[in-house]
Amino acid sequence: MVGATAASGLALAVKADASDAAMFRAADGLRATRPAVVTLQWAVERCLSVLACTKPDERPKIAWAAAADIVREEAASNRSIGRYGLELIRAMADRRDGEPVRILTHGHAGRLTTTHLGTATAPIYLGHRAGIPMRVLVDESRPGCQGSALTAWELHREGIECDVLADGAGGLLMQRGDVDLVITGADRVAANGDVCNHIGTYLVALAARESEVPFCVAVPTSMIDPDAPDGSCIPIEHRDAEAVLHAVGRDDDGESRRVRVAADGVSALNPTFDITPASLVTVLITERGLLKPDTAGRAVR
Amino acid sequence: MVGATAASGLALAVKADASDAAMFRAADGLRATRPAVVTLQWAVERCLSVLACTKPDERPKIAWAAAADIVREEAASNRSIGRYGLELIRAMADRRDGEPVRILTHGHAGRLTTTHLGTATAPIYLGHRAGIPMRVLVDESRPGCQGSALTAWELHREGIECDVLADGAGGLLMQRGDVDLVITGADRVAANGDVCNHIGTYLVALAARESEVPFCVAVPTSMIDPDAPDGSCIPIEHRDAEAVLHAVGRDDDGESRRVRVAADGVSALNPTFDITPASLVTVLITERGLLKPDTAGRAVR
Repeated sequence: MVGATAASGLALAVKADASDAAMFRAADGLRATRPAVVTLQWAVERCLSVLACTKPDERPKIAWAAAADIVREEAASNRSIGRYGLELIRAMADRRDGEPVRILTHGHAGRLTTTHLGTATAPIYLGHRAGIPMRVLVDESRPGCQGSALTAWELHREGIECDVLADGAGGLLMQRGDVDLVITGADRVAANGDVCNHIGTYLVALAARESEVPFCVAVPTSMIDPDAPDGSCIPIEHRDAEAVLHAVGRDDDGESRRVRVAADGVSALNPTFDITPASLVTVLITERGLLKPDTAGRAVR
Repeated sequence: MVGATAASGLALAVKADASDAAMFRAADGLRATRPAVVTLQWAVERCLSVLACTKPDERPKIAWAAAADIVREEAASNRSIGRYGLELIRAMADRRDGEPVRILTHGHAGRLTTTHLGTATAPIYLGHRAGIPMRVLVDESRPGCQGSALTAWELHREGIECDVLADGAGGLLMQRGDVDLVITGADRVAANGDVCNHIGTYLVALAARESEVPFCVAVPTSMIDPDAPDGSCIPIEHRDAEAVLHAVGRDDDGESRRVRVAADGVSALNPTFDITPASLVTVLITERGLLKPDTAGRAVR
């Protein structure tokens, strides 16, 4: 769902230098930022396919138009995901009989990295607007802390009640009956419904199954990759180990600082995504409706 | 396994002020630091039972003797746990045919919070001394980062190869066949074998079962609580939520600093322990040998 961002990035690059060399270099750079994120790859391809046969001096205008199209389409897609997801929250609200629906989320698939309502956050925003009492449990989502820094920021700003959790804590809360629904986003979905998402999502899904909590993945169909038969075909990026050894935050003066949380001299591994098998996924919430995960590939062929 | 620490703490307090009032106040203070840790509670009780019927001027000497006894006993217990656990590592080493045995651990149950060899670390230390090639995967264990700050520090200092992981990452590594054995400690074990340990342990255990990785809990029998029939009887402490919203580490100048990793204004929940059901535990590694978890209560009656 970062297609809009990628397309806008390419438009900016083309505005600065519209030559073939610069344009393809910029495209390669954008693609390399998130090789696993199929929407990003797709958005760059889509813009390039229009721009490649356009004269350099016409490119800036065309690139902006292509990016604007993608932004509009993604916003519409988010709204639609939100509406389908809202029905799930509404059904849970009926069962909760006035008590807040407790939704756990992991990673970040909000408006900050996408457009408009985000994906995993879209049903939550619409639920809030509809006046459904909700409480969101936000996994901090180490090592980047996208959960506590981004998702929680967004929800709090919108006035939605939320509590941040250490990534290990969701299992206990599910065991104790304190979670009604899990909604996460996805960076890629294989044809068989295996879900690639922020590292740790798989553990949340295991705990959800164990406690019979529905595990829902909000994802536009553009993230479904029919060419990846299953999750084992999705390459898992390993990013800089320093991110695991450190934490980034603000000190008492509000200055951004990086501190080393790990002992000196030790090393780390930093796989960025993991694979949640389709069998653990209750439903995919897409802009076309709720999909059984094992039908993901067929839905986009 | 923090009995030695608690007993030594009480001895220090009694040295400063041996009056009844001061002694019982110190004992209460120590007990309150870790209500769930049965060995700590037990060590304080054991020392008090000797000290209560002793005259104040004799207490400092008696308190040190009682603490020294507990230190010696815990060291012997750790060695014994280490020897039994070593056999598991050895068996895995045979299967690995010269390749390093990959052991994942969560939380901290090393020598820094206990004595001598620690509990979860004891088999690893003995394996290293026996020349078995090993690679330890250390969950950072948020929010306190006891894994990356303490466990990894200990192992690295001993020359044992280790890599720190974000708490969500172990599941992926197990799925991919990159973990041979999980060994954690425990803060308390119920009579039915349910294990109370650092928050997130339960998620690791779920992933271990899913990937058929043995999940072993190194724990002295003094941590088994025959009065807790199962894990639901173990109260889960909630500590200060600020720990989840922040991270503590060293800045570039080596100064200790706390930074806020979460967005401003958001709240957090900080349950400190979780409960791993006995059904997920392959074996308890105790000083008396390997125990099937469901026999835990009988073993200490």
